[in-house]
Amino acid sequence: MALIVQKYGGTSVADPDRVKFVAEHIAKTKRAGNDVVVVVSAPAGMTDDLTHRALKISEMPNPREMDMLLSTGEQISIALTAMALQELGVPAISFTGPQVCIRTDDAHQKARIVDINANKIGKELSDGKVVVIAGFQGIDTHDEITTLGRGGSDTTAVAIAAAIGADVCEIYTDVDGVYTADPRVVPNATKLAKISYDEMLELASLGAKVLHPRSVEVAKIHDVKLAVRSSFNTHIGGTYVVKSEELEKEYAVTGLACDKNVAKVSIFGVEDRPGIAAEVFTALAQEKISVDMIIQSAMVDNLNDIAFTIAKSDSKRAKLILENLKSSLGYREIHVDDNVVKISAVGAGMVGAHGVAARMFAALRDAGVNIDLISTSEVKISVVIAYDDENLKKAMQAIHDAFELENIE
Amino acid sequence: MALIVQKYGGTSVADPDRVKFVAEHIAKTKRAGNDVVVVVSAPAGMTDDLTHRALKISEMPNPREMDMLLSTGEQISIALTAMALQELGVPAISFTGPQVCIRTDDAHQKARIVDINANKIGKELSDGKVVVIAGFQGIDTHDEITTLGRGGSDTTAVAIAAAIGADVCEIYTDVDGVYTADPRVVPNATKLAKISYDEMLELASLGAKVLHPRSVEVAKIHDVKLAVRSSFNTHIGGTYVVKSEELEKEYAVTGLACDKNVAKVSIFGVEDRPGIAAEVFTALAQEKISVDMIIQSAMVDNLNDIAFTIAKSDSKRAKLILENLKSSLGYREIHVDDNVVKISAVGAGMVGAHGVAARMFAALRDAGVNIDLISTSEVKISVVIAYDDENLKKAMQAIHDAFELENIE
Repeated sequence: MALIVQKYGGTSVADPDRVKFVAEHIAKTKRAGNDVVVVVSAPAGMTDDLTHRALKISEMPNPREMDMLLSTGEQISIALTAMALQELGVPAISFTGPQVCIRTDDAHQKARIVDINANKIGKELSDGKVVVIAGFQGIDTHDEITTLGRGGSDTTAVAIAAAIGADVCEIYTDVDGVYTADPRVVPNATKLAKISYDEMLELASLGAKVLHPRSVEVAKIHDVKLAVRSSFNTHIGGTYVVKSEELEKEYAVTGLACDKNVAKVSIFGVEDRPGIAAEVFTALAQEKISVDMIIQSAMVDNLNDIAFTIAKSDSKRAKLILENLKSSLGYREIHVDDNVVKISAVGAGMVGAHGVAARMFAALRDAGVNIDLISTSEVKISVVIAYDDENLKKAMQAIHDAFELENIE
Repeated sequence: MALIVQKYGGTSVADPDRVKFVAEHIAKTKRAGNDVVVVVSAPAGMTDDLTHRALKISEMPNPREMDMLLSTGEQISIALTAMALQELGVPAISFTGPQVCIRTDDAHQKARIVDINANKIGKELSDGKVVVIAGFQGIDTHDEITTLGRGGSDTTAVAIAAAIGADVCEIYTDVDGVYTADPRVVPNATKLAKISYDEMLELASLGAKVLHPRSVEVAKIHDVKLAVRSSFNTHIGGTYVVKSEELEKEYAVTGLACDKNVAKVSIFGVEDRPGIAAEVFTALAQEKISVDMIIQSAMVDNLNDIAFTIAKSDSKRAKLILENLKSSLGYREIHVDDNVVKISAVGAGMVGAHGVAARMFAALRDAGVNIDLISTSEVKISVVIAYDDENLKKAMQAIHDAFELENIE
């Protein structure tokens, strides 16, 4: 008997049949003697449909009105989920985010949860009800409806779990756990039984889509035990995301992530004088373009090359900005390459192990994969390589094999 | 310069293009110097779609959860309408029913408005904004979302107009006013420039679909001037619903309504003893079957015939109930006729005029229409006749001609 938060994403509540299927699993959990809080997303496709309607009316819809619009999606899901539970004889009640006071800041469309009032949830739980709460939405201090932005429902679930002191927060999704790599890319990738918050945070930030980084961050801060499970195969156990102290063993590399939403910008032949790098990155920051990996290499004749990565969607704008700076920077030429992919190896044990980077680079060399950029931290090594499906698979498989990830437990 | 409430129904906000069209008219009203509050329904078809989803999950969905589900429809409309106004450069803000404290009783799915807090609306109006409010929904004293049932958005608009002391409440719909009869049935029917609350209330109750009776009732109680106008042809003036003192002239008959949702029940050869009628109508009332027109005719041999009308949808159940009472009532036989229609003539001037009923019956006789049942009050005469399209049109046209309704102003 435990206090469990279960979160179901959009594909899990896409239509009435899926809702009924999900309700069966919730009912089973409840009947096993647990107290259950359920967090649901909007039915798959609904957020896109509503956004499409808004864009037919305005190219830049007002963010407050977008939140008013988009928050209806989860409200539909909570009502249908509560009905499905009641139909199974399980007492249930639905609440919108504002109704259970999921208090956020006032940044419409990308709000952050600042507080949750657990009283109302606790009262309904002690009445024996399953409490079904809309993910992704909250209310700011002016009582305006807000939404949390991408991955928001995961964060809602974790924040609620923290607020009510849940024993576990189960994230049900369309995969059955966290794998050492995407199985579509590395066929012999293994499901991890456990992974630490820090590793999961890195993997999520580096392109693994199974959890949103913000939700992992909140889980880590509040020490919420996370479980990633399949909403389609609810009998299969998933992956637990826990404190690193709870891991039986730390691996130098636990998992691989890849991110195709990357472009590489190279500035060739820049004069070697103070302030050049500052000028480049200030100009990009002013246009809200985030820069990821940065490499500067000293050259002969006092000329440098600077290379860095940005999001692929920013590449056209970045090129324009830099072309406008040509006279003041005095570079020879710039080159923007959209056709790259970032591969990262993540492991909490990397910090104590020797030669991890060397082993990874050797594996790539032996596979004939050329490395464009490298960036390392205490728990990850990232490389940028040329992107095509074959090159990506070859590189991922080589690193996976080098660290024997298929044998991880 | 006036304070105007405008209500737009589901067909008026069915899709983004319709929303944009409606916004143009609101913007025009605002730019003419008026303060404007807009009340909108759910996009046409959405309530049916959501209900359909709920019924796939439960045959009898929980009413609280149905309100949670259905209230999303209007929320979508308010957000899109506010966006469309902003796109035209008109400051606008949307609110759900709960957000502007449209306080109702707790009868989910058929709640009644008990109070509206006008402060929030007033504040936004004085900031120069168009305030867009979700119709059909409110919040009960336990802060639960409620919906008002059929015609609810009209009632919301009228109640808001009363709360903020609006100069007029304009109901935009798919017809351009109140006609002396349905023009599809009586081709030379005329649009009325004005009609009294009492006449409109009777017409609405007797089958005219242009306004919901409850909204007219609220308008009458709070003395809210109503205008019925077309949302498709916004340049055309509509019909004003006003106090009878404001009518230039009272007519014996102002308009005709017909109601096809009627069945006639006849009980033949009932023993003439006290309590028989009470027994029949108590049994029906217990099963929540409403009875409309009742006629009892004394016969020879101490046997009576009783005839009455009920909603067509109740006819099968009513028959069963009465058959179960056969031994205690001791009637000879019962007969239920679904193929009837009720035609009503309504006029505030009927009370002072002589021979109105006689003129109506003569017109029907001359047209060869047989009358089944008759019922009269101070402001209306209703008859039930056999229903087929031809008989209905013949009867309606005959009455329309007899009272020269095509000449009404």
